[in-house]
Amino acid sequence: MEIQGLMVIGRRTVRGAGGDQNAYNPSTRAAFGPAFGQATSADVEQACALAAQAFDPYRALPPERRARFLEAIAEQILAVGPALIERAQQETGLPAARLEGERMRTVNQLRLFAKVVRDGHFLGATLDSALPERAPPRPDLRLRKIGLGPVAVFGASNFPLAFSVAGGDTASALAAGCPVVVKAHGAHPGTSELVGRAMQRAAIDCELPEGVFSMLYGDGRSIGQQLVAHPAIKAVGFTGSRQGGMALMRAAAARPEPIPVYAEMSSVNPVFLLPAALREGGAALAQGFVESLTLGVGQFCTNPGLVFAVEGAELDTFLAAAGQALGAKGAGTMLTAGIHEAYQSGVARFGAIAGLQLVARGLEQGAGCAAQAALYVCDAASFLADPALQDEVFGPCALVVRFESAGQMLAAAEDLHGQLTATVHARDEDLGLAARLLPVLERKAGRVLFNGFPTGVEVCHAMVHGGPFPATSDSRSTSVGATAIDRFLRPVCYQGLPPALLPEALRDDNPLGLSRIVNGEMQTAG
Amino acid sequence: MEIQGLMVIGRRTVRGAGGDQNAYNPSTRAAFGPAFGQATSADVEQACALAAQAFDPYRALPPERRARFLEAIAEQILAVGPALIERAQQETGLPAARLEGERMRTVNQLRLFAKVVRDGHFLGATLDSALPERAPPRPDLRLRKIGLGPVAVFGASNFPLAFSVAGGDTASALAAGCPVVVKAHGAHPGTSELVGRAMQRAAIDCELPEGVFSMLYGDGRSIGQQLVAHPAIKAVGFTGSRQGGMALMRAAAARPEPIPVYAEMSSVNPVFLLPAALREGGAALAQGFVESLTLGVGQFCTNPGLVFAVEGAELDTFLAAAGQALGAKGAGTMLTAGIHEAYQSGVARFGAIAGLQLVARGLEQGAGCAAQAALYVCDAASFLADPALQDEVFGPCALVVRFESAGQMLAAAEDLHGQLTATVHARDEDLGLAARLLPVLERKAGRVLFNGFPTGVEVCHAMVHGGPFPATSDSRSTSVGATAIDRFLRPVCYQGLPPALLPEALRDDNPLGLSRIVNGEMQTAG
Repeated sequence: MEIQGLMVIGRRTVRGAGGDQNAYNPSTRAAFGPAFGQATSADVEQACALAAQAFDPYRALPPERRARFLEAIAEQILAVGPALIERAQQETGLPAARLEGERMRTVNQLRLFAKVVRDGHFLGATLDSALPERAPPRPDLRLRKIGLGPVAVFGASNFPLAFSVAGGDTASALAAGCPVVVKAHGAHPGTSELVGRAMQRAAIDCELPEGVFSMLYGDGRSIGQQLVAHPAIKAVGFTGSRQGGMALMRAAAARPEPIPVYAEMSSVNPVFLLPAALREGGAALAQGFVESLTLGVGQFCTNPGLVFAVEGAELDTFLAAAGQALGAKGAGTMLTAGIHEAYQSGVARFGAIAGLQLVARGLEQGAGCAAQAALYVCDAASFLADPALQDEVFGPCALVVRFESAGQMLAAAEDLHGQLTATVHARDEDLGLAARLLPVLERKAGRVLFNGFPTGVEVCHAMVHGGPFPATSDSRSTSVGATAIDRFLRPVCYQGLPPALLPEALRDDNPLGLSRIVNGEMQTAG
Repeated sequence: MEIQGLMVIGRRTVRGAGGDQNAYNPSTRAAFGPAFGQATSADVEQACALAAQAFDPYRALPPERRARFLEAIAEQILAVGPALIERAQQETGLPAARLEGERMRTVNQLRLFAKVVRDGHFLGATLDSALPERAPPRPDLRLRKIGLGPVAVFGASNFPLAFSVAGGDTASALAAGCPVVVKAHGAHPGTSELVGRAMQRAAIDCELPEGVFSMLYGDGRSIGQQLVAHPAIKAVGFTGSRQGGMALMRAAAARPEPIPVYAEMSSVNPVFLLPAALREGGAALAQGFVESLTLGVGQFCTNPGLVFAVEGAELDTFLAAAGQALGAKGAGTMLTAGIHEAYQSGVARFGAIAGLQLVARGLEQGAGCAAQAALYVCDAASFLADPALQDEVFGPCALVVRFESAGQMLAAAEDLHGQLTATVHARDEDLGLAARLLPVLERKAGRVLFNGFPTGVEVCHAMVHGGPFPATSDSRSTSVGATAIDRFLRPVCYQGLPPALLPEALRDDNPLGLSRIVNGEMQTAG
């Protein structure tokens, strides 16, 4: 399939007349073709109108049809073949192996949601029998969850496949029975077209109602805002900067009918090195930390940007080893010129703060948008005096904070902003301190991990990729893992419904074989 | 126990120094004592600080302790005895039998949440085993839900027991492991004191951390706003007017850390009379409708304020019978002078609209805040021309809309605002039409009911008392029923946690006997 610069609006491919945008190669700093026509207001209107029309017929389909659609998308993405990896490489600077892994993650994610749809736990099916003899009589009451309605998805720059056009937000929304309108990220328009048209083929092959999926190009401030303001849109999924996420939160709250926004924004993912772990494993920890920090040029939401430890010879050893490891790291190409500029100014900001000392820089950058890793250290007083030191510098830059005591470190944990992850390195003799730290970290982060590093987010049932503000706009949910589907659902109660009208999930004979709560007790099928 | 005008701040009872407020008897239009001292800023600060301190120790208690606390609250409320009913009667004008029923509902609600806590389904316990042989290896991942943090609850005027100090929001937040700070409703301060102090006794008897519960008097615009803006508060529960709810939504969104608001606001609860149901049951339907409309002087959130039907002799028969039934209804005392005034002006607003015809008024009002029921009718064109006709007139006032055809009625359903409930009256031969209406009503309402009336909200597992905006601020949840607990929870994932630190809910040996999702499959205990 040739990249033609086309958008997807239902069953049509369309050249947007809202002005052209180009792809950009961050390795060569060169724009390249073809030109991608951006959406006009009329295109947004049409995509939203089709999505609204598709909602009822799409959600009424048997779960098996919905699951098959998700699997068909996975197949169509694989069918694009090497062209997808090549294009994504040109547009993002990411290496082929990483992109191939990400493609498999995207495919597996779609397949996981197919399983989630077939299992049907997400429906929350609950039945309370009528009690006609009771005074007052209790009517027959049954609950299931349905989709919120059409969802606007904003692709992320840092996962051009797994968190973009057919990424986690799209997969979970489609699984929930919601049509999706994607605003493709301007950093990988060609990759987006390839995936968007693969999705279109899957929708047509599965004979789905037109409008279950559309994809538009355009600027976030104009097309994106119009999309979020459109009355047909009932929820928003976003992964990106805090500034971008908060603009969408404001737009959604200002609508005549406010809608939920799931924005995954910023996190520095603190790592606590407890005394025995630091003493016994300092050098290995330093190596693991630097690998995690610089993986993918530090462009992961779960990148460990902040390290807490108690001062002393053990910490000095860790810093020396980390500095040495980081000093040998080559400069990798960042995703976009904008991200690279923001990284440069973030590192410069750190460099200008009197209380911060440079531990090491990575190897110098070559041509293109290459980022030189950076590691700083400061004492507790400097850290606690400046809340801006908790602001994420997106890229391979981290700050180590030296505390005078474990108690001071514990107290500082209380001042952390909301995070996607918090990591503890602990040996057996650290467990007392870890036990005091754990309830604090539970309040601060969506995922608490021990003796590992936060990069690498498993797509499974127990994953939480979320957390308190500003890590996300809504800590009640996750954007990775099976329960991501819950974000796009709302419960409906059916009272006294004639059996002929009951949804299959709630019929007495349980034709879908669901686990259901019946008169307050969990009943598993079969 | 004597009513002394005291607030509850943790283990202390306190006279607020923020100016006095009085109770008001809507039957006699007289203020009465004692004076209730309103909170100062320092009182809000102290209640919130105690709640923040209580959060970790309270949520760490075994579920059995949390369940016992909820049951102890129920016992302490019952132990207040007839004084509670007498005081509530004076403050609200509601009859004793209704208040006794509401007390039992409140007690049963607390007991339901004790069962919910013991069952533990709400924890969403999910385990994914480590796969060390896989490339890359999968770590051990476990998910459970924890409380959001301290919750601010705003008592409702229309349920002085079941949706006030120890009402649904408080019970579900405490069940979720969240401390609660109640802003007592100014319409029933004495009732609030009796219940608030009963809760305080329960907390002390159960040896809970101080600050798990506090209750303050004060104005919504000052004390209420300060409470919602306080950094310790992590969620808000509210039942009241759209204006009040939206003010809290704005305040919560404007915080440095935005928090969720669960505001149950306004709903006209449309009732669809389908042709065969109208033909075969017109007079009985009219009787049932008027009973539901005037129950509790129309002061229910689920009061049926809008009726849709197709014009014709059958509708004329219904209107004549409804008019006759309503014309015989006595004027009941409304909850407050403010609610009464708003009702009077709402009815006057309807009376002044040219397209609306009066069908009937109830019997004339006597002294006090008594409300004369009102029934209006209009044609479809008048209804569709004026969206303000969908605004709730809180009280026993309804509007019947005559459509020219079933198709026109179906199209108008699409224009309905979000609702708590939607009701369909249908006979067998109406089922085709009902099947077309159902997907629309699912999108519009939290509960869809057939051949009944929406007043009467069962407290059970399958209930949904919620719905799209403006019925509530957040359609993803319910404020009545077992799943109301979900509003105050967020998921946390534990990766590679040392077994000694694992929460009981996630231990391999499942000591709590929970149903859990293990490697993607539901496993029930025992």
